[in-house]
Amino acid sequence: MGVATLPDLAQAAQDIMTAGRLLDAKNMAPATSGNYSMRLRDGHIAMTVSGRHKGRLQANDIMTLNAKGVPLENKTPSAEAALHTQIYALFPEANAILHVHSVASVVLTRALRGDLVLAGYEMLKIFPGITTHETHVTIPVFDNAQDMTVLSAQVAQKITKALPVYLIRDHGFYAWAPDMPQAGYLCEALEYMLQCELELLKIAGGTPK
Amino acid sequence: MGVATLPDLAQAAQDIMTAGRLLDAKNMAPATSGNYSMRLRDGHIAMTVSGRHKGRLQANDIMTLNAKGVPLENKTPSAEAALHTQIYALFPEANAILHVHSVASVVLTRALRGDLVLAGYEMLKIFPGITTHETHVTIPVFDNAQDMTVLSAQVAQKITKALPVYLIRDHGFYAWAPDMPQAGYLCEALEYMLQCELELLKIAGGTPK
Amino acid sequence: MGVATLPDLAQAAQDIMTAGRLLDAKNMAPATSGNYSMRLRDGHIAMTVSGRHKGRLQANDIMTLNAKGVPLENKTPSAEAALHTQIYALFPEANAILHVHSVASVVLTRALRGDLVLAGYEMLKIFPGITTHETHVTIPVFDNAQDMTVLSAQVAQKITKALPVYLIRDHGFYAWAPDMPQAGYLCEALEYMLQCELELLKIAGGTPK
Amino acid sequence: MGVATLPDLAQAAQDIMTAGRLLDAKNMAPATSGNYSMRLRDGHIAMTVSGRHKGRLQANDIMTLNAKGVPLENKTPSAEAALHTQIYALFPEANAILHVHSVASVVLTRALRGDLVLAGYEMLKIFPGITTHETHVTIPVFDNAQDMTVLSAQVAQKITKALPVYLIRDHGFYAWAPDMPQAGYLCEALEYMLQCELELLKIAGGTPK
Repeated sequence: MGVATLPDLAQAAQDIMTAGRLLDAKNMAPATSGNYSMRLRDGHIAMTVSGRHKGRLQANDIMTLNAKGVPLENKTPSAEAALHTQIYALFPEANAILHVHSVASVVLTRALRGDLVLAGYEMLKIFPGITTHETHVTIPVFDNAQDMTVLSAQVAQKITKALPVYLIRDHGFYAWAPDMPQAGYLCEALEYMLQCELELLKIAGGTPK
Repeated sequence: MGVATLPDLAQAAQDIMTAGRLLDAKNMAPATSGNYSMRLRDGHIAMTVSGRHKGRLQANDIMTLNAKGVPLENKTPSAEAALHTQIYALFPEANAILHVHSVASVVLTRALRGDLVLAGYEMLKIFPGITTHETHVTIPVFDNAQDMTVLSAQVAQKITKALPVYLIRDHGFYAWAPDMPQAGYLCEALEYMLQCELELLKIAGGTPK
Repeated sequence: MGVATLPDLAQAAQDIMTAGRLLDAKNMAPATSGNYSMRLRDGHIAMTVSGRHKGRLQANDIMTLNAKGVPLENKTPSAEAALHTQIYALFPEANAILHVHSVASVVLTRALRGDLVLAGYEMLKIFPGITTHETHVTIPVFDNAQDMTVLSAQVAQKITKALPVYLIRDHGFYAWAPDMPQAGYLCEALEYMLQCELELLKIAGGTPK
Repeated sequence: MGVATLPDLAQAAQDIMTAGRLLDAKNMAPATSGNYSMRLRDGHIAMTVSGRHKGRLQANDIMTLNAKGVPLENKTPSAEAALHTQIYALFPEANAILHVHSVASVVLTRALRGDLVLAGYEMLKIFPGITTHETHVTIPVFDNAQDMTVLSAQVAQKITKALPVYLIRDHGFYAWAPDMPQAGYLCEALEYMLQCELELLKIAGGTPK
């Protein structure tokens, strides 16, 4: 997606509101959780205002920030704005970012130690460059932190262009893509594999590893 | 929310009907379960009539009571009206109350003894004054009772302004907030954490504690 | 509900179509499963035609039978029509019957032997005459059979006016009420308690009893 | 269904879009997973274009192929087009094919070895010629492969007219029928029985067989 095709604020707000309705319908937006953003044509960022229900967003629930995360209007962005600007700075092809909460992501990151390995799923082909199920990916899991400096420093050490998702323990996950529909597909695909992993863990029984 | 901005009955009925549709879509309003109310501008209370499906409320399914819970019209309010008036009397900032039933709340309160501790969730920040996941809350769990005098006396001993929710064993939970949307967010957030706890209990296996 | 207020076919068809949409949305109408009926003002019965998806019923998917279950038009009613006419003959207050399939009902009746005891739920108050959670009901579970003579003979021995529901093993459940909305509430309430029981069984672990 | 009643492309596209919305609502179409097709009146095949979200299909997301799977327009069909043309060639009565992904199908095929036996369900009557629950079916489970020559050769050895479904391990399942609504019913019915099997496996506990 070239700069010429990046959205203006009005179009980005539409895309973000649509994403919110779809994610809420799939149980990835409980209460006011999550935050969503898009890179705009003018280099600024459109981001959801803090504390709004993502399934019922209005246009004025989306605000603009500059590329360093400084608000350009008198509204409060998500406390996690720095995690969004980090992704935009690192990956020029990232134009839309979704951070969502889900039961499966919280339960799995709480039950398991270390990063999360997903192996053998046909659905792995959702990730860029993966063309077969005969592979695995290791999705970084970061310990939750309220200090974004701490959290973004951990994130910086592990995220790569090849795998545009990461998990935060007890919290949820991030996904980014060249446009908002594709970011939504990543969320649906990852959540689906997390739900599979959670079901497998329940079948296996026993205490958490 | 000042008295000036409290709703009249017509507006409260709209808010209550909307809350019902949203909670039903998220499986927190099976059959005719639950009861919802709002504090009105004139000091009265708008409350759902007993025995109606909360996902399909009509305006005439909402009635008025005075602050002591006495019906002001010839309809039957929920048997639990006294639990609503108790909250309004104790907490001036409470203007909307939702009582819902959910599978997770019943199963957890049946499987576990004592109150329910929720710890380490990012979602805990939904509660007033909580700004970090590095904390825990102890949500009161009251044994169910049909005698509201008994139940409200138990409730009085434990509820606080700091934690606007409580659970009733084998039954469901209450949540209250300055307005109806925020009360709905509390329901979604608490239900989400209850679902996480239930999944963790299934992973852990073994017999209920 | 007096005879005067019983519906004609057009009204019954509306009620049945609405019930189908609601039950499908709550996962109680997979594929073409289930069958629904209502007692009409003229003493006949309106019933869903065999093999239709209950979440997407059209008016011509509902046909009429006489009180003995004989089709009054050239369409094929459900093979279980005899179970409906049995209920209408036994219970004059029954004017609407819903037979639904659900995952919880099949899994529970397969995992457990004998009838199903539900105890201690606030939701038990959905059943006629029950005013407290401090009770239990024993819901009959009948072994599935394709011969309706066999099945209805078993049913006749156990069903009572006091408890307007029964389960069929590996199959689903029946619920009846004075009107269609109330029959739907019974389905939602029973399914909710079945889901609670299933979750409790998974927490308890071990092999099926 | 005679050739005269087979759809043209416009009608097939409508049927495919409707199927996608319904399957997505029932969690059988996460992200861009799955592929759907119909046999057209002119002997060609209408099939979903690769990489589209099946719950939000537009008419131009459906393309035409000839009976050998060669695209008749400049779009990319699903990589699994050969599995569709195989079914159309083997079974003249198959006019609509749905391939879907679901959590239950992936978890079950991962947890269990060999083919999947479904026994005793009333819902088994969804399969052609089955008139009683007192039976069982053995649904073929094929190991996933990216080489469609390999996969279709395995499929050819086991699929029969009598059982119009098969599972692919770690991936999902196929279902086909004389028209699109019936293909959808097969998906709902199979998914329902897979969910029952998964719940039974969790009750049984222990490690996967």
